[in-house]
Amino acid sequence: MGIVVVGSVAYDTVDTASGHRDNALGGAATYFSIAARFFAPVSIVGVVGEDFQPEHERMLVDRRIDIRAMERHPGKTFHWHGRYHEDMNKRDTVSLALNVFEGFNPTLTPDQQRCDYLFLANISPELQYRVASQVTAPKLVAADTMDFWIQNARPQLTRLLERLDILTVNDEEARMLSGEHNLVKAGRAILQMGPKILLVKRGEYGVLQFSKDGMFAVPAYPLEEVVDPTGAGDSFAGGMMGFLARQGRLNESILRTAVVYGTVMASYTVENFSMDRLLELTWEEIDYRYRAFIELTDSHSNRWNSPS
Amino acid sequence: MGIVVVGSVAYDTVDTASGHRDNALGGAATYFSIAARFFAPVSIVGVVGEDFQPEHERMLVDRRIDIRAMERHPGKTFHWHGRYHEDMNKRDTVSLALNVFEGFNPTLTPDQQRCDYLFLANISPELQYRVASQVTAPKLVAADTMDFWIQNARPQLTRLLERLDILTVNDEEARMLSGEHNLVKAGRAILQMGPKILLVKRGEYGVLQFSKDGMFAVPAYPLEEVVDPTGAGDSFAGGMMGFLARQGRLNESILRTAVVYGTVMASYTVENFSMDRLLELTWEEIDYRYRAFIELTDSHSNRWNSPS
Repeated sequence: MGIVVVGSVAYDTVDTASGHRDNALGGAATYFSIAARFFAPVSIVGVVGEDFQPEHERMLVDRRIDIRAMERHPGKTFHWHGRYHEDMNKRDTVSLALNVFEGFNPTLTPDQQRCDYLFLANISPELQYRVASQVTAPKLVAADTMDFWIQNARPQLTRLLERLDILTVNDEEARMLSGEHNLVKAGRAILQMGPKILLVKRGEYGVLQFSKDGMFAVPAYPLEEVVDPTGAGDSFAGGMMGFLARQGRLNESILRTAVVYGTVMASYTVENFSMDRLLELTWEEIDYRYRAFIELTDSHSNRWNSPS
Repeated sequence: MGIVVVGSVAYDTVDTASGHRDNALGGAATYFSIAARFFAPVSIVGVVGEDFQPEHERMLVDRRIDIRAMERHPGKTFHWHGRYHEDMNKRDTVSLALNVFEGFNPTLTPDQQRCDYLFLANISPELQYRVASQVTAPKLVAADTMDFWIQNARPQLTRLLERLDILTVNDEEARMLSGEHNLVKAGRAILQMGPKILLVKRGEYGVLQFSKDGMFAVPAYPLEEVVDPTGAGDSFAGGMMGFLARQGRLNESILRTAVVYGTVMASYTVENFSMDRLLELTWEEIDYRYRAFIELTDSHSNRWNSPS
């Protein structure tokens, strides 16, 4: 039932309307793992530098996240500096230093090769493919990507898409990948490229899910304050994959519930900088917000039949 | 059970990515009535010019929309020319000629004064208030407004808000009216100003409903093609008010269903220019999309309890 995630472990410097945070723990694999760990065992494939702090390593171990395949290399940990607009759906990258991540060549342990659930966080599709190929008989493979790879590594991405169960992208990426401005058309076109399921992340507007069974639309959980949107997408993926791994099987109903749990995890993530909110989160809070979410979106069928 | 709507009856010239339409039938009261008429009797309070075409008058009468209080004045009908961006949530007003609408002084017939449901489409809050004052004992009063009135007629708008059951605005207007960027805070602040219910229209991202019973979030119905978004908000209001009038009573469950029917009507409106799609719509289609919408948003509760 275990999940393997491959992706960045990073230190982030972040500016938002709510404030500034220097060198806070970040990275897609980190957000993903901490969110997923509420539901199922997770192990990380990643790389950190010599500056990776013992307290962060300890935190991951304490949460029983398997970091045996998180390599430590000479040099510094991947660093990203981002600045969000007042409209937090928009952000600029101020600086980006790949550091040890530049030579990242992910290698799975024998245990990881036998995993059932694999999440390929946003790294080059070439590497994502190489990791996917190391897994013997996965039940489900999901991947995230970004505009840079869509524009600059199209053949590698195309090859990857063919073996995916789930692809997660944001709305602009869905448009870019498909060449369709309309999201419904874009979604259908992307399903033709290989993935069985497409999850389009729309930030504060929620998620649009496409599959052979149709569409599922969920709003984001409306929050009174968004402090830092960093990691929302990856903790969404973590909650979603965590729930799927916990269930051990997949149907439309389970998938929809997984998307709601993903939405719940993302909503908590953005309430504070870095992983601060996720790290203090309890099961009771997850359950509370899950139920609040169901209430928020329940349209109480009251259909009125035509007078004809 | 009748609904009275006061607002514009217009001719629109519209440019969208899908094409161009000259002098097509438009206006808030028109869109509203045609949508609402599927559910309940409607009468219009409005004004048109000498150029208002007999075929349009006949169409309204044929649909049993009461136009006895739609005055015909010397001069031309209100004309609006709008141009939509490729992102159809954005539009520019190319030109606007109030024409006979400039001296509009709405007067309700004795029948209309006894109506149960009143919708004050987007006109000056001064006029909206004057109309509301003519209605003897309404069950429910709803109003729409826009940025111009929020900025230029704040005292009149404030006085109106105190007597509203429902206010509909878009997200930018909600922010402007409340002075809060965050929509949840904005929604709560606006409820403090008077309306019992606030419906925030977010275009392709759906509607966020605020009331004392909490929030309700609905996505827009995802469409493969949006031809012309003009009238979406007014036909949303028409479907919503029509359903409420049909029910004759109000609770959270009925309100949510009304919002879904409003969303369904808006989704059809934008599929073609002007009212073309609304005018050929059947009850079977409304019912079909209502059910599709419920399916689209049904999260199939599959809650998994904590392992603790």
